[in-house]
Amino acid sequence: MKTAEIPRPTLERLPLYYRSLSLWREQGIITVSSVDIGRDVGVNVVQVRKDLAYFGEFGRPGVGYNVEYLMDELGKLMGFTTETKAVLIGAGRLGTAVVSYGGFKRYSVKIAAMFDTDKEKIGTEVSDVPILDMAYLPQFLGENEIELGIITVPSLAAQEVADILTANDIKAIWNFAPVSLQVPEEIKVRNEDLAVGLATLCYFLNKEKKDAP
Amino acid sequence: MKTAEIPRPTLERLPLYYRSLSLWREQGIITVSSVDIGRDVGVNVVQVRKDLAYFGEFGRPGVGYNVEYLMDELGKLMGFTTETKAVLIGAGRLGTAVVSYGGFKRYSVKIAAMFDTDKEKIGTEVSDVPILDMAYLPQFLGENEIELGIITVPSLAAQEVADILTANDIKAIWNFAPVSLQVPEEIKVRNEDLAVGLATLCYFLNKEKKDAP
Repeated sequence: MKTAEIPRPTLERLPLYYRSLSLWREQGIITVSSVDIGRDVGVNVVQVRKDLAYFGEFGRPGVGYNVEYLMDELGKLMGFTTETKAVLIGAGRLGTAVVSYGGFKRYSVKIAAMFDTDKEKIGTEVSDVPILDMAYLPQFLGENEIELGIITVPSLAAQEVADILTANDIKAIWNFAPVSLQVPEEIKVRNEDLAVGLATLCYFLNKEKKDAP
Repeated sequence: MKTAEIPRPTLERLPLYYRSLSLWREQGIITVSSVDIGRDVGVNVVQVRKDLAYFGEFGRPGVGYNVEYLMDELGKLMGFTTETKAVLIGAGRLGTAVVSYGGFKRYSVKIAAMFDTDKEKIGTEVSDVPILDMAYLPQFLGENEIELGIITVPSLAAQEVADILTANDIKAIWNFAPVSLQVPEEIKVRNEDLAVGLATLCYFLNKEKKDAP
């Protein structure tokens, strides 16, 4: 199983298949077809079959995929069954929205703590996650084997936070601040940038207007 | 100028270039090189030149790109200079985080109102945007030429909201609920799905562990 060779577009679709499967499992469905999966996640059936074939021959013609088995295999291969410990920095509106996201459990990600500089927030909790003093972050990282740092601070503070994270052995950063972070090469950064989505929609709407008779 | 032919990956990078340019403009920078742009947004220089070439020959060898001019041209072509009116449905944590996002102005998107069913929230404001009663949504859409609907309600309510939006002439949907919406073909839907980002990071972290000696 050469998971290292999975192309990025496939990799981006796998969590959608995984979520779709988990919803079927909850409904007690035993097998699904690639047509069902494709319709549910909005990907054409040929692509679904191709994507899932990277993981071996799971599907059986005329029968479909076993929901439980496929989900387990995908989960193992993608690392969703191994616990990942994370911290989130920036307990503002965005930070509290992210920490309330229901998907962390599905991927075995545990947010150990949130960090902020606001004295009003320090000592409180959001979604059962404690908000700690930012000054305590380096020590916390050293003591708790945290692998993932989630950055939800304003743009101007983001690089400084990234520097603290990388200096304290974090391995990956999920960045919600709209800036490009400078980090050592071995650190994986994933940027969630609302600008891309919004701009894509504006482009579409503008094109519609131009093309209108 | 055949904007319809811009490939999707290029389209996804353009807003990043645009934001990078707007930051330089704020700093009073007149010209930038493709190397500067590439470093800032994390794209290699050859790709930057190729992407920008879709919009004509803006750059001059040895001189670079004129920040102001390139920004204006990108803005016009992408529709960032035409006002787009939007509504946001779901004034919970995610909704208030999205409405507080600073990028709407940059793309000339105006959120006319938020909608919710929670009587405690109706009549209040977030980031100067009023929260109105969900029951009033169809009438509001009919009277205000809204083109874009932003969905930040829980998954179970998302399809119902999408149905109201599409029945009332919305042209595009920015969907933050982790479900695939069924909408008429002519409606453009953009899904912002945290699952993809999180799963990608978990996959990376798991691979690191497997590959470790």
